[in-house]
Amino acid sequence: MAEKIGKQTYLLKSKPSICGYSAVVGKTEGEGPIAEDFDYIFSDDTINGSASFEKAESALQREAVTRAIAKANACTDDVDIIMGGDLLNQCIGTTFGIKEMNIPFLGLYGACSTMALSLGIASTFVDSGACSNTVATTSSHFASAERQFRMPLEYGGQRTPTAQRTATAAGACYVSSHKKNTPSISAVIFGKITDLNIKDPNNMGAAMAPAAADTIAQFLKDTGTRPSDYDLILTGDLGKVGKDLLIELLMKDENIDISAVHNDCGLMIYDMENQDVHAGGSGCGCSAAVLNSNIMKRMLSGELKKVFFVGTGALLSLTSNLQGESIPGIAHGVLITTEE
Amino acid sequence: MAEKIGKQTYLLKSKPSICGYSAVVGKTEGEGPIAEDFDYIFSDDTINGSASFEKAESALQREAVTRAIAKANACTDDVDIIMGGDLLNQCIGTTFGIKEMNIPFLGLYGACSTMALSLGIASTFVDSGACSNTVATTSSHFASAERQFRMPLEYGGQRTPTAQRTATAAGACYVSSHKKNTPSISAVIFGKITDLNIKDPNNMGAAMAPAAADTIAQFLKDTGTRPSDYDLILTGDLGKVGKDLLIELLMKDENIDISAVHNDCGLMIYDMENQDVHAGGSGCGCSAAVLNSNIMKRMLSGELKKVFFVGTGALLSLTSNLQGESIPGIAHGVLITTEE
Repeated sequence: MAEKIGKQTYLLKSKPSICGYSAVVGKTEGEGPIAEDFDYIFSDDTINGSASFEKAESALQREAVTRAIAKANACTDDVDIIMGGDLLNQCIGTTFGIKEMNIPFLGLYGACSTMALSLGIASTFVDSGACSNTVATTSSHFASAERQFRMPLEYGGQRTPTAQRTATAAGACYVSSHKKNTPSISAVIFGKITDLNIKDPNNMGAAMAPAAADTIAQFLKDTGTRPSDYDLILTGDLGKVGKDLLIELLMKDENIDISAVHNDCGLMIYDMENQDVHAGGSGCGCSAAVLNSNIMKRMLSGELKKVFFVGTGALLSLTSNLQGESIPGIAHGVLITTEE
Repeated sequence: MAEKIGKQTYLLKSKPSICGYSAVVGKTEGEGPIAEDFDYIFSDDTINGSASFEKAESALQREAVTRAIAKANACTDDVDIIMGGDLLNQCIGTTFGIKEMNIPFLGLYGACSTMALSLGIASTFVDSGACSNTVATTSSHFASAERQFRMPLEYGGQRTPTAQRTATAAGACYVSSHKKNTPSISAVIFGKITDLNIKDPNNMGAAMAPAAADTIAQFLKDTGTRPSDYDLILTGDLGKVGKDLLIELLMKDENIDISAVHNDCGLMIYDMENQDVHAGGSGCGCSAAVLNSNIMKRMLSGELKKVFFVGTGALLSLTSNLQGESIPGIAHGVLITTEE
C-alpha cells in the first residue's frame, strides 16, 4: 500500500519488482557504446521491412514487450494491464504495436517521460494489490518523429547543434510483486508541468531541464535525502544542453549539486564523440532502452543499488508550436533499488 | 485496497467518491435537452475569444477543472494528482488547459474513452491509499477535432449520416476517499483494444461498438451480474449507429440484452430530432459533460443508484488512417453507485 510522503512522492511499501525487461534498437543505436547490452539490434530502421516508419516503430515496441514478457517467464495471458504510450499522434506506435496481444491497455501520453510514467503507474497498480503483473512500455523512431515534429528526412534539412536525435528504440518492463535480488520500485513521484517558455523544437533539452530540476529537488526534499545517497540519478533524455542546464538550475535555485552522481540516457546511448548525433539522444525509446539494458544489468550485477530514474518529457506539439505557444516540460521519477 | 475479480475487473473496496463535478459546454450543446444541467454554457465557441480553437478547448477544460475543485470546497493545493487527456495531438487541450495549476499531472490518451480512463485511474489511486484527492478530466472541441481529424470547418465539407459531432465540452471529477450519500466508484474495468477493421473516420460508432461490447460483456461476467442489476448502462459516445451495433453485437455474440437499461451520452447531449448532429455526439468532452451534469444530478437525487459508465474510444489517427490502417477501439468502465 502506497504512502504519500512530502508533497509529491509515494512510497511503495511492497516494492514491486521488475521481473523482466527488454530493449531493442535500430542500427545507429546498435553502433553506440552500450550496444552489447541490448536484447536485439535491427540491421535497418524499417524493422524487417515495415511499409512505413510508423509501422516500424510499432514493430519495435511489439518486439520489446514480447521479449520482456518472455524474459519474465510469463505469457501475455499473465499480464493484467499494459501501460504505454509514445510520441506519435494518438500514440499509434503503441496502439498498433500491442493491439493483437489482447491485454487490457491503459494509454498514456508523457512524451519522452513515458518510460518513467508507465513504470510509475504500473508499479503503483501492483503495489495497490489491484494487479499481479503489469507491463510498462514505450518506443520512438528517428524517422517517424522527425517527420511528425520537424521535417521528413527526405527533405535533407540541417539540424542545429542543440537538436537531439530521437532514438530508434523501444523498452519494456514486466512489473510484478516483490522478488528478492531483483530491481524493485521503492518510490514514485509524478511531476508538474513546468514551462520556461522555450519555443524552439530543436532545443528540447532546455524545455525539459526545468521540469527535471523541479522533480529531482522535490523528491530529495520529500524523502529527506541528498544526491550522495544515490548511486545514480539518471535523467532521460536531456542530452548535452539539457544536462548542463539541469545541473546549473539545481545549483542556482536549490543549492543541490548532483554532478557527481548524474548521468543522462541521451548521452549514454550514442558515442558523443564519433556519432553524428548533435546534442545526444532523445525520444521515449531512448531512456526506455538505456534503462532496460545497461542500467538493469548493472543493478543485477550489484554495481548499482539505488537508481533514481527521472523520465523527462517535452510536451511539444506542432499545432501549439506553430500557434506560437511554448514547449512545456514534465518529469516523472521512480526510485529503483536492489536492497532487500 | 483493490481486488481483482474475474479477468479484468477491480473492486475498489474503499469506494472513492466523486465529491465535486463540473461540466461546461459550447453553444450547440447548450441548446440541447440537458442544457439546464450544465454548470456553464459559453455563448460562442471561441470560449471568451481564444485566438485558436485549440486554445478554446484548453480554456474549456481549465474551466471544468476549476469548477470541479471549487464544488468540492477544495483548492488546487489539495489535489495530489490530476489525470487527464484529450483528442488533440500530444493532448494539448489538457497540457495548456491545466499547466498553470501547478498540480502533478499524469497524461493519458484514450480518445473518447478518456473520462472513464481518467476516472478509473484516479479512483484506483485514491483506493490504494496513495492519493487523498485526485481530479479526472477531459475535453473536446468540434472545430479543433474536425480540423485535426477530418477537414477544417472553413472547407464546408458535407458530413455523412454516420458521422458524429464532436461535442464542444469539458468535464471533470474531484475524486476523494469515500463520503456517504455521494456517487462512489465501486469497481473499474480497463478494456482491451478491439478492431473490427473499420477504416471510415466518419463512422466512429462502428469502430467503438465492438470494444464497448467486449468490456460490457466481460464486466458482467467478472461481477456475475445481469443488465437488470443496473439502473443504467451508459456508453459514451457511440451515437446512433454505434448504439444499435452494440446492442446487436451483445445479443448475437453473448446473448445479453442491455436494451432496457442502455443509453448513450452521444444521444443525450443533443436533440436528435431537431439539432443537425447526424449520428449524435462524440469526443472526450461529450461523455465527460453528460456524466458530470445530468447523470451526477440524477444519482444525487436518488433517481439512479447504480450506473455502469463505459467510455468508448476510437483510436483514430490521421497518420495511420491515411496509411490504410483500421481504427481500433477501446472501452473502459467504472461502476458508480450511491448505496452506502
